[in-house]
Amino acid sequence: MRTWQVRDVMTTDVASVREGTAYREIVDVLTDRRVTAAPVVDGDRRVLGVVSEADLMYKVELSGQPRERRIVPDRHRREARAKAGATLAADLMTAPPVTVAPDATLVEAARRMDSRGVKRLPVVDDLGRLVGIVTRGDLLKVHLRPDADIRRDVVDEVLRRTLGVRDGVVDVAVHGGVVTLTGQLERWSTVRLALRLTRQVSGVVEVVDALGYAVDDAPHSALRLGGGMPAGIA
Amino acid sequence: MRTWQVRDVMTTDVASVREGTAYREIVDVLTDRRVTAAPVVDGDRRVLGVVSEADLMYKVELSGQPRERRIVPDRHRREARAKAGATLAADLMTAPPVTVAPDATLVEAARRMDSRGVKRLPVVDDLGRLVGIVTRGDLLKVHLRPDADIRRDVVDEVLRRTLGVRDGVVDVAVHGGVVTLTGQLERWSTVRLALRLTRQVSGVVEVVDALGYAVDDAPHSALRLGGGMPAGIA
Repeated sequence: MRTWQVRDVMTTDVASVREGTAYREIVDVLTDRRVTAAPVVDGDRRVLGVVSEADLMYKVELSGQPRERRIVPDRHRREARAKAGATLAADLMTAPPVTVAPDATLVEAARRMDSRGVKRLPVVDDLGRLVGIVTRGDLLKVHLRPDADIRRDVVDEVLRRTLGVRDGVVDVAVHGGVVTLTGQLERWSTVRLALRLTRQVSGVVEVVDALGYAVDDAPHSALRLGGGMPAGIA
Repeated sequence: MRTWQVRDVMTTDVASVREGTAYREIVDVLTDRRVTAAPVVDGDRRVLGVVSEADLMYKVELSGQPRERRIVPDRHRREARAKAGATLAADLMTAPPVTVAPDATLVEAARRMDSRGVKRLPVVDDLGRLVGIVTRGDLLKVHLRPDADIRRDVVDEVLRRTLGVRDGVVDVAVHGGVVTLTGQLERWSTVRLALRLTRQVSGVVEVVDALGYAVDDAPHSALRLGGGMPAGIA
């Protein structure tokens, strides 16, 4: 069982532009290639920034508006006005770029997108050179993984190899990425671990717990009955 | 000269899902149709919400994370956890939807997207039924309008019909959507109006002002020299 990496789902034929690419040519590239953003690269393919539909939209939004000045314009408005007046990639782009390495996991990439508020990450090598791009849509592809592949990972890797559960003790059913585990295990802690490791299998949408156990080895089991879960195990 | 409306650029063959559509089927629809979001509709095609890659991403992002509880989780985290655990469109979608009418202008649609923080708007009729969808990319298509079409609007509609400027007084050059106006007009106020109306022509990326004037009829011209612009004219 190998955790999926960015290189497994990224696009390598990336639509990119140069610092001096003009506004309309950028729109042309995005439309032709059916993408919503393009990395801006220098002559060595190093990524300088990303120009997205958001950066280009200001010109539509502020079209024909009087250019009144405010004494203290807020930051968003100031940036919007600057980009509405810009015509070259270098002035339109968002920089510095938020990038990712090809060997990052999909979970790492997803968290970086969320925390930095971006919808795609240019994938760069150790020298900062563009080798691909990964979008939110690419990350979601892991959920298109066939049920049979997911089931094989749960049965072979999680139950048999990692937890040492004998074949036939736990029934594993997978439908549309939703994994249902049914059966009886020895300990409560093994049940928790089985559920947790199953959730980490690439492509798993949800895990339904239909597992029982003989021995309750939960620490602070009084607390657990109250709805909490002991840290470090759950 | 007709200002472009949402109906001119929207997609009418919309990929949509129902309230009960399951997580993986939604991912399937987005991937197959190469879109980043789909409206969720009821049996009468009324739009209930929108399910986007952002709504689906939480499941990737929180994959395998222990479900620790916080005493007071913040709103974003609470929503993220709820959506990470959801498996049906009705629970995953963002609702109520931010929609637009087919006869709205592109500028209105762009401003609504920006103020509401969305990247596409379902287009609905008077009864709230889905008739199309408009993305930021669709709105940018106005900037792919041929230079010759833009020039015709500026010459015929702005200069000749609206301002009554005689032919040959102002030279109009359009390259990549950038309009350069060259020549000599009678009044400062006419110059301002010519620039402003030209910026409103559909597809104009920028207006370069190379116009002179004989009579300075600017109110508060001292203020104008100071860098400001009188409200109501500029």
